[in-house]
Amino acid sequence: MTVQYPKGFQPRQAKAIVQAKQKTDIKSFSKRGIGLEDEINEANAYYLANNLAVIHKKPTPITIVKVDYPNRAMAKITEAYFNKASTTDYNGLYQGKYIDFDAKETRNKTNFPLKNFHEHQMLHLKRILIQGGVGFVIIRFTSLDESYVYPAEALIAHYEAKDGKKSIPYADIARDGFLIEKQLQPALDYLRAVDVWLENLDNKE
Amino acid sequence: MTVQYPKGFQPRQAKAIVQAKQKTDIKSFSKRGIGLEDEINEANAYYLANNLAVIHKKPTPITIVKVDYPNRAMAKITEAYFNKASTTDYNGLYQGKYIDFDAKETRNKTNFPLKNFHEHQMLHLKRILIQGGVGFVIIRFTSLDESYVYPAEALIAHYEAKDGKKSIPYADIARDGFLIEKQLQPALDYLRAVDVWLENLDNKE
Repeated sequence: MTVQYPKGFQPRQAKAIVQAKQKTDIKSFSKRGIGLEDEINEANAYYLANNLAVIHKKPTPITIVKVDYPNRAMAKITEAYFNKASTTDYNGLYQGKYIDFDAKETRNKTNFPLKNFHEHQMLHLKRILIQGGVGFVIIRFTSLDESYVYPAEALIAHYEAKDGKKSIPYADIARDGFLIEKQLQPALDYLRAVDVWLENLDNKE
Repeated sequence: MTVQYPKGFQPRQAKAIVQAKQKTDIKSFSKRGIGLEDEINEANAYYLANNLAVIHKKPTPITIVKVDYPNRAMAKITEAYFNKASTTDYNGLYQGKYIDFDAKETRNKTNFPLKNFHEHQMLHLKRILIQGGVGFVIIRFTSLDESYVYPAEALIAHYEAKDGKKSIPYADIARDGFLIEKQLQPALDYLRAVDVWLENLDNKE
């Protein structure tokens, strides 16, 4: 991943858009690559349809500069720019609990590079913890085909550690995170891993 | 308000954008008119800075079709369209509670027209209530200079009533809603009205 993308914009989307420009059908393309984001969206749709949770991906933040009105019923944005996201990508409500998270993947097998996260995301997750919310990241090791719910507390501790390390060892994530077991529907039932985490917390208290 | 706007797009934004096309500076314009949305944004910034709550306005949902890269560091969206919003405009976390709301204003003095709300927003607020969240709308009567936190339960009851009425009487909103008292900072301290509401609920139980 050496291509430069604007902040707050997911590489998968950029790729899909560039490809869509060639194919002129963005929708057929976004369905092709079933990546982490697609699986989270699928899980959220499943949770919503079954009244299990109300969790949505936030729209990509942009600044709109020009809008044309080719006809009365239509508005076409002709100039806009990507903004830096000031929060995480997902939030919502699960059985009375406020849920807030971001999702990242790496091909690295031994550690997760911290450069995947930005200062403002860490600050946001800190604020969520202060206000009593459930904050975490979903980290996927694509080469290992393993995804974890990794608590924000642990992530922030690594991010703020003054040991000069720029990544979190895989072993740490496997130990402190909660493996998302694969299943049929939804494929990525991450709230089950959240349940295990919260049950562990209750037992510790 | 007879102009046709795309769904999910706020008239104030449209006005600002059209004006910005003439003035070529969207930012100076959006600061000019201090409307309901600006006051909510100001309150949210105040809550965030003082660790009182983490509540954000969601970005306007759009579908991006074309992106140009005039240079390596820049991405310019040259074709995009507005999507219908499937949720409310604001959500977040307040002292462990999930908060979810929309904001609407009317110049009408005697009632609030229900056409300001859409089916999908009602469905979303219903889901929030099922999952134990705090759902409401902030309704401003601009001519009366009064703003209320109006619980989602009451709004949904009016929306689903089969009495053929297409508006909520002002008296109902003043009775079942919680007036947002004006103050200096933030000007629209809507969470204080939410506090009064939740205290009332606790006393009833």
